[in-house]
Amino acid sequence: MPVLRSIRERFERERPLTGIRVAACLHVTAETANLVRTLTSGGCAAALCAANPLSTQDDVAAALAADGHVEVRARRGEDLDTYAAHVAALADERPHVTLDDGADLLSVLHARGGEALDGLRGGTEETTTGLLRLRRLEAEGRLACPVLAVNEARAERAFNDRHGTGQSALDGILRATNLLLAGQTLVVLGYGQTGRGIAQRARGAGAAVIVCEVDALAALEARMDGYEVMPATAAAERGDLFVTVTGSRSVLRREHFERMKDGAVLANAGHFDVEIDLDDLRALASSVREVRPLVDRYDLGDRALYLLARGRVVNLAAAEGHPAAVMDVSFALQALCVEELVLRGQALEPGVRAVPRAIDDEVARLRLDALGVSIDSVTEAQRRYLDSWT
Amino acid sequence: MPVLRSIRERFERERPLTGIRVAACLHVTAETANLVRTLTSGGCAAALCAANPLSTQDDVAAALAADGHVEVRARRGEDLDTYAAHVAALADERPHVTLDDGADLLSVLHARGGEALDGLRGGTEETTTGLLRLRRLEAEGRLACPVLAVNEARAERAFNDRHGTGQSALDGILRATNLLLAGQTLVVLGYGQTGRGIAQRARGAGAAVIVCEVDALAALEARMDGYEVMPATAAAERGDLFVTVTGSRSVLRREHFERMKDGAVLANAGHFDVEIDLDDLRALASSVREVRPLVDRYDLGDRALYLLARGRVVNLAAAEGHPAAVMDVSFALQALCVEELVLRGQALEPGVRAVPRAIDDEVARLRLDALGVSIDSVTEAQRRYLDSWT
Amino acid sequence: MPVLRSIRERFERERPLTGIRVAACLHVTAETANLVRTLTSGGCAAALCAANPLSTQDDVAAALAADGHVEVRARRGEDLDTYAAHVAALADERPHVTLDDGADLLSVLHARGGEALDGLRGGTEETTTGLLRLRRLEAEGRLACPVLAVNEARAERAFNDRHGTGQSALDGILRATNLLLAGQTLVVLGYGQTGRGIAQRARGAGAAVIVCEVDALAALEARMDGYEVMPATAAAERGDLFVTVTGSRSVLRREHFERMKDGAVLANAGHFDVEIDLDDLRALASSVREVRPLVDRYDLGDRALYLLARGRVVNLAAAEGHPAAVMDVSFALQALCVEELVLRGQALEPGVRAVPRAIDDEVARLRLDALGVSIDSVTEAQRRYLDSWT
Amino acid sequence: MPVLRSIRERFERERPLTGIRVAACLHVTAETANLVRTLTSGGCAAALCAANPLSTQDDVAAALAADGHVEVRARRGEDLDTYAAHVAALADERPHVTLDDGADLLSVLHARGGEALDGLRGGTEETTTGLLRLRRLEAEGRLACPVLAVNEARAERAFNDRHGTGQSALDGILRATNLLLAGQTLVVLGYGQTGRGIAQRARGAGAAVIVCEVDALAALEARMDGYEVMPATAAAERGDLFVTVTGSRSVLRREHFERMKDGAVLANAGHFDVEIDLDDLRALASSVREVRPLVDRYDLGDRALYLLARGRVVNLAAAEGHPAAVMDVSFALQALCVEELVLRGQALEPGVRAVPRAIDDEVARLRLDALGVSIDSVTEAQRRYLDSWT
Repeated sequence: MPVLRSIRERFERERPLTGIRVAACLHVTAETANLVRTLTSGGCAAALCAANPLSTQDDVAAALAADGHVEVRARRGEDLDTYAAHVAALADERPHVTLDDGADLLSVLHARGGEALDGLRGGTEETTTGLLRLRRLEAEGRLACPVLAVNEARAERAFNDRHGTGQSALDGILRATNLLLAGQTLVVLGYGQTGRGIAQRARGAGAAVIVCEVDALAALEARMDGYEVMPATAAAERGDLFVTVTGSRSVLRREHFERMKDGAVLANAGHFDVEIDLDDLRALASSVREVRPLVDRYDLGDRALYLLARGRVVNLAAAEGHPAAVMDVSFALQALCVEELVLRGQALEPGVRAVPRAIDDEVARLRLDALGVSIDSVTEAQRRYLDSWT
Repeated sequence: MPVLRSIRERFERERPLTGIRVAACLHVTAETANLVRTLTSGGCAAALCAANPLSTQDDVAAALAADGHVEVRARRGEDLDTYAAHVAALADERPHVTLDDGADLLSVLHARGGEALDGLRGGTEETTTGLLRLRRLEAEGRLACPVLAVNEARAERAFNDRHGTGQSALDGILRATNLLLAGQTLVVLGYGQTGRGIAQRARGAGAAVIVCEVDALAALEARMDGYEVMPATAAAERGDLFVTVTGSRSVLRREHFERMKDGAVLANAGHFDVEIDLDDLRALASSVREVRPLVDRYDLGDRALYLLARGRVVNLAAAEGHPAAVMDVSFALQALCVEELVLRGQALEPGVRAVPRAIDDEVARLRLDALGVSIDSVTEAQRRYLDSWT
Repeated sequence: MPVLRSIRERFERERPLTGIRVAACLHVTAETANLVRTLTSGGCAAALCAANPLSTQDDVAAALAADGHVEVRARRGEDLDTYAAHVAALADERPHVTLDDGADLLSVLHARGGEALDGLRGGTEETTTGLLRLRRLEAEGRLACPVLAVNEARAERAFNDRHGTGQSALDGILRATNLLLAGQTLVVLGYGQTGRGIAQRARGAGAAVIVCEVDALAALEARMDGYEVMPATAAAERGDLFVTVTGSRSVLRREHFERMKDGAVLANAGHFDVEIDLDDLRALASSVREVRPLVDRYDLGDRALYLLARGRVVNLAAAEGHPAAVMDVSFALQALCVEELVLRGQALEPGVRAVPRAIDDEVARLRLDALGVSIDSVTEAQRRYLDSWT
Repeated sequence: MPVLRSIRERFERERPLTGIRVAACLHVTAETANLVRTLTSGGCAAALCAANPLSTQDDVAAALAADGHVEVRARRGEDLDTYAAHVAALADERPHVTLDDGADLLSVLHARGGEALDGLRGGTEETTTGLLRLRRLEAEGRLACPVLAVNEARAERAFNDRHGTGQSALDGILRATNLLLAGQTLVVLGYGQTGRGIAQRARGAGAAVIVCEVDALAALEARMDGYEVMPATAAAERGDLFVTVTGSRSVLRREHFERMKDGAVLANAGHFDVEIDLDDLRALASSVREVRPLVDRYDLGDRALYLLARGRVVNLAAAEGHPAAVMDVSFALQALCVEELVLRGQALEPGVRAVPRAIDDEVARLRLDALGVSIDSVTEAQRRYLDSWT
C-alpha cells in the first residue's frame, strides 16, 4: 500500500493529529491495521472495534493491541451484545473524529447526544448503507457534525467500482466456472461504473457484450461505447452469462429465467443478493444441486440454469475481494479525511459532505507516484490565461 | 435530425409555446432553421439574427423568412454595425426567451436593463465563452434571469466532445495528411471528454497512445485506462503525432518542439488556436512552406515539423465539423430548454443553471428511439425497493 | 518512403543489379518513380510503361525520362493501341526481370515465347488478377520463369489489407457521409484481413459490429474476437452501415435490400464493384438521386437506401487510397524481389512462388527502423536450445 | 463438450470405425473418456494407457473399463516399468490407428518395426514435443505412416493458444497475486498466438502493454496493433508484470533481472519452465521466501522480485488449465482425424501432415452450432464467379 505508506511518512514528520482521539469501527484486518498505524503515526490516540465480527482477524487485533498505541476491542465471532458493548466503549472515549463502516459508531454517539457529541469534529463513512443512515439523520435536522463520504470520492469510484470490482467480478466468475469468455455473449445489467468496468474487460476477453439499463442516458452512453443495448427480456434469449450490477432488486426474475438458453450462467456483482430473484428461480426449478463449488444447477425441465455463489456478490464470494491497490486508495482517502476533519472540521457545517477535491487530487498524485508516473503542471502563463476566463 | 423532428411533432400537437416571443442569436445554418421551425411549431413567434456573420447561409435565411413565421435579420458578411443593429432589433422585441451562442443578445438586454428585462423568462447559451460572460454577470449580482447551460448537459458532452470531436478530430487529421495511424505513436494532450474520445479511436486504429495531463485525477484515469502517461517534454521525444485538447494555451511550445522527432505532426482540436504556440514554432524555423493543403512544413534545420490547419481547430478546418447526429442532440436540448423556460422559467431564481436532468433524459430517450434501441423501465417493486433507501 | 530509401542507399553502395535489364509495367506515379530510381541505383537499366493509362502522371513520366537512366513509355489517357505498342516495346528489350501490375508484360513475353523468354530470370506481380492469369499459365505448363507473388507477402497483407484498407475504407465512408460511427451498427461482410481491420477500427470508434461470413473458421474467429456473427439476411435488418469485403459477387442483393432499415448506407471495400448487386438495387428503386457527392439515394417506397461511390471501392473513390507507409512496404518488397530474382532467379523452377520469408523479414526490420523501434535478437544459447528441437 | 457430443451422435448413426482397432496413449481424464467413448460409438475397439501417470484419474479409468468396450491400462502414479509395459501391451494389439500425446506409442511401434507396423493406417499427435520426435523420424526416412498434427490445426491454434492460454495465463496470475491489472505495465515476451491473446486481454483490463520479440514480422504486427515494442532490456526497466510465451529459454535472465523495478512480478506461460532463468535469479538473490502460495519473493538487496509458480506454466500451476470449450475443440479434432485415417489413411504417404482443412472447417461449423451462431453459404452464382477465377 504505497500511497498509505507515503501519507504515514508525512504524518510521522508533521504529526498533524497530535492530541486528537480517533475512534474507528471498521473491519479488523491487516489493511485496517495499516490505516490505524498511519493515524497514530500522526500523533493521535486511537481506539478500534469491529464493524463486522465475522471479518475480524484475531492475530491482527492482537498485534495492533501489542503496539501500545491503540485500544482494540474486537474478537472474531463476538456476539451482538459484546459488539454493542465494544461500540459503546468507543463512544465513551468521546472521540474527536470517527471512522465508520456502516455508521454504527456515529449513530450511537448521536443517540446519546448532548455531551457525547461535544468535541466531535466529524466522521468518515465508507459505505452506501452508512451514508443513507446519516443522510436520513441530516434530513431530520439531527446530524451534529460534518461527515465525509469517502466512498463517493472520484478516486474511490474509479478504483473501487470500475477497476476493482470490474476486474474481480470477472475473476470470481472464472474461478467459479472456468468458462472461456471468448465467443460467449455476456449480458451486463446496469451500466454504472462497475458495469462499465465489466463490459470493457469482457470485450477485451473476446465476449460479445449486451447492456441492459433503465436509465436512458446510461443506456445511450453504452450504445455510443459500441455495445448492444436492449431490454432484459430480449437479452435473456441471447445471453450465455448474465451479471447484475444495478443496486436494485429482482433485476433478473421469472420473465427472464423463462426465456434463457439452456446452460445460461447467472452472477451478481451488485451490492446485495437481491438482484437475482432467488424465489422466482426456485419456484421454476424442479431440482437444484451444486455441480462445482459455488455453482448451483437449477433444473427447469427442458433447460438448466447455473447460479453462482447463491446470488451473493460474486467477486467477494468466489474471488479474493479487492486487490491491495484498491484498498490503498480507500484507506489513503480515509487518512486524509481524518486530517481534514482535525484541521478544518470545526469550521464545517454539519452534514454529509463530498470529500474535498484537494484530497482526491492528493491521493491521485500519490497513486501516480506509486505507479512511477509523473505529469505536467500548469505554467505561470497558462495560469494567467485560464484565470482570465473567470 | 430525428430527435428534433420528434420534438417538433409533439410541439405541433401540444403548442406549448403559444403566445411566446423567442429571440435567437445563432449561426444561421440549415440546422438552425430546423430548430427555429421546431420552436414556431410550438406556437411562438421567433426572431433570428446571426451570431457570426461569416457562417450565415443566405439561402437559409431567405427560406426561413419566406415561411412568414420568423423574422430573420442576417446577411452573410454583414459588418459590425449591421450586426449590432440586428441584435438591437431583436432586443427591441422584448423576447420572453432568448437563445444565444456567445451571450450577445442577453448582454444587450442586460445593458439596457429595466423594462428591457420585463417579461424575460430566461435564456439558453450554447458556448463556453458565453457562459463565462454570463457567470461574470451573475457573480456581480446583475444577472436578471435563469440561463440554461446547454453545452454542459450530459448528453451534449458525450455526443459533442467524446464522440463528435473525438471522431472528427482524427477525421480531419487523416484528410489533411493521409497518414497511416497504425504503428504511430499519438500523443493526446488533455484527457477531458474529447481527449478520451480521440485516445480510444486512435487505439482502435492501431496507434500507441500517450496521454499528457496537468490534472492528477484525469492522469490517473488515463493510466487506469491503459495509456502511457508522462510529462509533455518526455512525450515530445516519443510522438509521431500530437493533438492538443486542453482548453489552455501554449501546451506545445519551444521546449517541446526542440525535443520532437523529424517528421512529427502537430494538430489542435481544443477550442482556440492558442494551444500550439505558433510564435515559438516560427521562431525556431528557418522556413515554412505548405506541402499539402492545410499542412505546413516548419524547417528546424536538422528536423522538420508539420503543422496542420495553422494550429486552428483541425476538425473544423480540415473535416466537415460535427455529424448531423451531434447537431440533432444539441438542438433538441435547445428546444426542450426553451419549453422549460416557458413553462417554469418564472419560478426559477436568476443564475446560470444546469439543464434539468429530465431534459437530458428525454433527449437520450429520443436518441435511443432514433437508433432503434429500447430499454427497460423500473418495475413497481423496484421503485419501492429503491425508495426505501431514501 | 523510408524503407525504400534505405534499400536505395544499399543498392547505391552494392550495385547488385549491375548489367541487368528490368522492364516494369506499373502505374506511373510518384511512388513508382521512387521504385524505379531505387532499381536503377542498383545498377540496372530500366524501362517503364503504364499498367493503366488513366493513372499516369505525365509530369512524373517526364521527370523520370529526364533522368536519363530510364526509358519511359507512358502518356496519360493513351489509347489501347498505343498501350499495346508500349508493352510490346518493353518486351522487345528482352528484359531479365519484369515487374507487372496485372501480368500484361509477362503475358506478352509468353505469347511471343522462344527467344523472347531467353535470359528472363523471373518477374514480380502485384495484383490478385495478375496472379490468377499467371497461375492459369502455370497450370497449363506454360509458365517459363519464376514469379514472386508480392501481394501475398505477409508484410504486404498486414500493411495493405488489415491496416491500409482497414483505415482507408472507413476514411472514405466518413468523407462521403460525415456519419457519426458511435452508436451505429456496422455490418462487415467478409472477415479476411481487410474485414478484420475495418471491424477493429469501427469498434474503436464506438460502432457495434456484426460480421457475416461463409467460411466457418473465419466466422468462428470473428465470434471469438467478440463480434456478433449471423447470416446476411439477419444482419440486413440490424445494420445502419454495410461494408462488403469478400472478393465475391452479389454479397448484398435483393433479399438483403428488402430487409434493410430506412436510411441504411451501403459501401464496398472489396476488390471489384460487383459485391453490391446494383441491378437488384436499381430494380427495387423507384428513383435514384445524388444527395451528396458520391452518395446516391435509392428510393424504395417506404424506405431509402444510400449507396456510396456507386458501389466502387470506397477507399479509392472517396478517400485518397493507400497512405505512403503502405506503398513504402509494397515497393520495398518489389525492389527486394527484383534483387532476389537477379541473384537467385536462374536457380528457381518456373512457377508462381511466395516471396521468400527473408525478404518479408527484411522489410519488416526496415519498417521497424523507420518507426524507431528496435527489437531483441536470439542469443547463442537460445539458438542452441531451439536447434536442439530439430 | 457439445462439439464432441454431436460427433458422437453421428458416429453412433454411421459407425465409420467399424472393425478398427484404436490405441490411445493420452492423459486419462474425464475429457479423454469422452473422446474414447466417442470413438467406440463409431464402432471401433479401443485400448487406452496413460501418457502421464501423474494425471491419471483412477475413477475415470475404472468407469471406462467397466463400459466393456475399452481396455484400460492406467494407474495413477504407476512406475516407469509399469508404464512401459502398458505402452507395450497396446503395441501388441497391432492398432490400425494410434492417438499420442508425446509420440510414445508410435515410437514403440516404430522401434519394433516390421509386422508391428502392418495394418497401421496412421496416428494423431497432440503435442509439439511429440511432433518434433516424429519429424525427426520422418527426416531419417523411417516414419512408416501418416501422422496428423492435431495441435497445429487452425481451430486448435485459435482456441488453445490465443483464447485458451490467453485467458488462463492472466487468470492464473490473478489467482496467484490478486494484483489490479489496470494501471500496471505488462510486458509480454513473445507475440505468437498466446502472446496476442494475453496482450489483448491485458489491454482490455486496463494494463499498458509492451511487447518484446525476436521476429521482425511479429514485432511489426505487434506495433501495428498499437503496442509498444522494444528490446527486453529496455522493457525490464518499465514493466510491473512480465509474462514469457516464447518457446525459447532464458528469455528473462540476469541482464533483465538487474534492471527490473522493485516489486516486479515474473510469470511464464510458455511450454516449459526454462523461459525464466532460475539459476540467474537465484544467483542474484540473497534470500527467497514464499509470501503467498505460488508466489516467491526473491530479495535482491535493494529490490525484490516475485516469481510465480516457480517459473512453471502459470495457467496450469495457478489456474485450472483449459476451459472445457478448448478441450472440446481439441478432442473433436482428434475424433475426426481418427475417422480420416480410417477412411483415407491407407492412401496417404507417410509423413507428419496438416489436419485437412475440411476437418478444421467441420469443427468450426460444429462449434458455431454450439454457440448458436449460423452463417451464410456461398450461392450458386457466387460459386460460379469464384470458380471463374481459377
